[in-house]
Amino acid sequence: MRAHIITIGDEILIGQIVDTNSAFIAKELDKIGVEVYQISSISDDKQHILDSLTAAEKTADLVILTGGLGPTKDDITKHTLCEYFEDILVENAEVLEHVENLFKHHVNRPILPANRSQAMIPSKASVLKNAYGTAPGMWMQSGNTVFISMPGVPFEMKSIMTEEIIPRLQKEFSRPFIVHRTLQTYGVGESEIANTIEEWENNLPSDIKLAYLPALGKVRLRLSTKGVDKVLLNHNLDKQITLLNELIGDIIVGYDDGESIEAVVASLFKTKNKTLAVAESCTGGQIAAAITAIPGASGYFKGGMVTYATHSKVELLKIDQELIDKHSVVSAEVAEAMAVSVRNWYKSDYAISTTGNAGPLKGDSEAEVGTVFIGIATPAKVFSVEFNMGNHRERVISKSVNKAFELLQKEILKN
Amino acid sequence: MRAHIITIGDEILIGQIVDTNSAFIAKELDKIGVEVYQISSISDDKQHILDSLTAAEKTADLVILTGGLGPTKDDITKHTLCEYFEDILVENAEVLEHVENLFKHHVNRPILPANRSQAMIPSKASVLKNAYGTAPGMWMQSGNTVFISMPGVPFEMKSIMTEEIIPRLQKEFSRPFIVHRTLQTYGVGESEIANTIEEWENNLPSDIKLAYLPALGKVRLRLSTKGVDKVLLNHNLDKQITLLNELIGDIIVGYDDGESIEAVVASLFKTKNKTLAVAESCTGGQIAAAITAIPGASGYFKGGMVTYATHSKVELLKIDQELIDKHSVVSAEVAEAMAVSVRNWYKSDYAISTTGNAGPLKGDSEAEVGTVFIGIATPAKVFSVEFNMGNHRERVISKSVNKAFELLQKEILKN
Repeated sequence: MRAHIITIGDEILIGQIVDTNSAFIAKELDKIGVEVYQISSISDDKQHILDSLTAAEKTADLVILTGGLGPTKDDITKHTLCEYFEDILVENAEVLEHVENLFKHHVNRPILPANRSQAMIPSKASVLKNAYGTAPGMWMQSGNTVFISMPGVPFEMKSIMTEEIIPRLQKEFSRPFIVHRTLQTYGVGESEIANTIEEWENNLPSDIKLAYLPALGKVRLRLSTKGVDKVLLNHNLDKQITLLNELIGDIIVGYDDGESIEAVVASLFKTKNKTLAVAESCTGGQIAAAITAIPGASGYFKGGMVTYATHSKVELLKIDQELIDKHSVVSAEVAEAMAVSVRNWYKSDYAISTTGNAGPLKGDSEAEVGTVFIGIATPAKVFSVEFNMGNHRERVISKSVNKAFELLQKEILKN
Repeated sequence: MRAHIITIGDEILIGQIVDTNSAFIAKELDKIGVEVYQISSISDDKQHILDSLTAAEKTADLVILTGGLGPTKDDITKHTLCEYFEDILVENAEVLEHVENLFKHHVNRPILPANRSQAMIPSKASVLKNAYGTAPGMWMQSGNTVFISMPGVPFEMKSIMTEEIIPRLQKEFSRPFIVHRTLQTYGVGESEIANTIEEWENNLPSDIKLAYLPALGKVRLRLSTKGVDKVLLNHNLDKQITLLNELIGDIIVGYDDGESIEAVVASLFKTKNKTLAVAESCTGGQIAAAITAIPGASGYFKGGMVTYATHSKVELLKIDQELIDKHSVVSAEVAEAMAVSVRNWYKSDYAISTTGNAGPLKGDSEAEVGTVFIGIATPAKVFSVEFNMGNHRERVISKSVNKAFELLQKEILKN
């Protein structure tokens, strides 16, 4: 089963927003064995939508549209679907009741004709319930191709996708299994890895696809395969992973089953019943933000301090001014003192700290832009690691956050 | 001039990464008057790339490709371009020198044949310099369509885009001006706005396009127009904005010229020479992270505390345990005490605090999921505002961050 995702709306085409909907939809489809063939973002222009539907129908069994279902004049998806399917809009009693209920219970103003018109649905469509909004999802069929239309508001789209579409696809269509394994390597470039594993890569069975994903000082290798026998697929991938381990086991730092490193670290802390605190300078709160973005963080995360100015490291974290004067604020000594101090303040088992210069200008210290020290305090010891993260501010910060989680993962695994 | 952006790589199609490159490219093109007609993400399959090039050439004057230019076997863009252009790869001396220099100065290992092969370029291509990587950008022409290929690594792509492509497009092609104005409204749904401005919308000149962008409790209205006379375009939009202000001025809270609210708040603090500190509970560091993501934050941001657990509010922020017991940890009183305390700790002019329940479960307090108090302390006063942000964790957190910046903006503007 091949899918084509089409997002409708000029805000993506003028770069006003990043299209995160497609990645969500693609991931959900991948999980149930539906291959995404293409993702297209197009403008809310009738002819452009019609042309895209025609083109998509030729190559895809499933076309998923998002956007253009609101109650205003620039929302034309429903009318365009009617034209494509030679259909008319009819009032759907169930949707009308849902819209009226939403207004009764959650909106402090009278319902308008435009809101009621959300219940007008192409007669050939079946309705996919939108628990959180007035625009329902719609499921239509043309020949062998299924067309699904959803609103573009992310949380509405997500709920329709997981509650309505995925279960129905699973029920109505037989699909193969798609299995991926992603290995994380560290410290060696992709060309050198490719060189080392060349013979292995040349002998890879044709139904296993290899991709190199280079990013910020690390390269991920993804193996993908699909078929009907999930046990066999997993067995085949495991065999290749074993061979890879013989060749480059020394640079493989982990396996990525789609879980973010924050999520991996979170489950480790919870499983081992340990607590964590953070003291952030150059990462400015991003480590804490990444931790607390995951539900259940309160189970192990005690909290953090963002001590951005040197002054606040002295006043709040009680770092010795003499230590800063002697070693500079961007130093191993200060990183370690920060980790120890925040661990004491929050009475946590582990603590992590960052101090560095993310640029673009040199700050309170003489450290080069990109120099970052990450400190870790554990029940048994304290240490720090120095990194040079390059000269892009955004990159320095996100690399530092990644590194902090990697170091933390390594450390908690030892205990 | 119409552009089609094509990103190549399975990682987008399986939802492993979000395509942020396209938004960046689209925004840069929009700024210089190039209209993006479509964005497509396709797999690294030769035939799919060839078909997409053919289709794009029919409707676009400019086709921008990213991805598939690395040194490994899964990188096939260059070879596919050769096939499309009936061309061959030839060694480019300038690129070879650049690759060798990069290895000499920045890489601690010998250069491999695969790295040197980055200097093999289609003979019909002109090179776009990649200051940060080994894969150059390439500029080719077929009929009246320009094809540009760039690596997919974001910081390499960004530098090629801004340093090489934009200046060359500006030099070689005459383009119209594209002008947008985005108004932020608050508190009224899109259907009600549409109802109020219906007559105005019906009378809008045909060269001005209106879009409704509903999101998290607010609706943005975007007016777009294009033409050759920038002064006239701005004048025409200003005239419509004045009319809109007469109709819905009471709900317009701001204008969005593409700047994020964090950036707006940052310049306000710097202009007014005021400082800021934050105490975050339910937002878990995301306010601090948003502030420090912008270069120059050290000029006004003193730092923050993430006091996630109730315990840390007492021990670190020195919030009175009795106050918490009396009013609950999610309360106006605690939000205000947090703001006052963190303002004192960091000796800042302003301070902002959050306490609430982001879900999915009730935490240390009896507050309903979605209840959030935001506290603000200024040199003159302290106050707090209560919100109900709904029951999606991600949404509660990001809405709270937005609200915090909105309140802060309002407050600093008064002084």
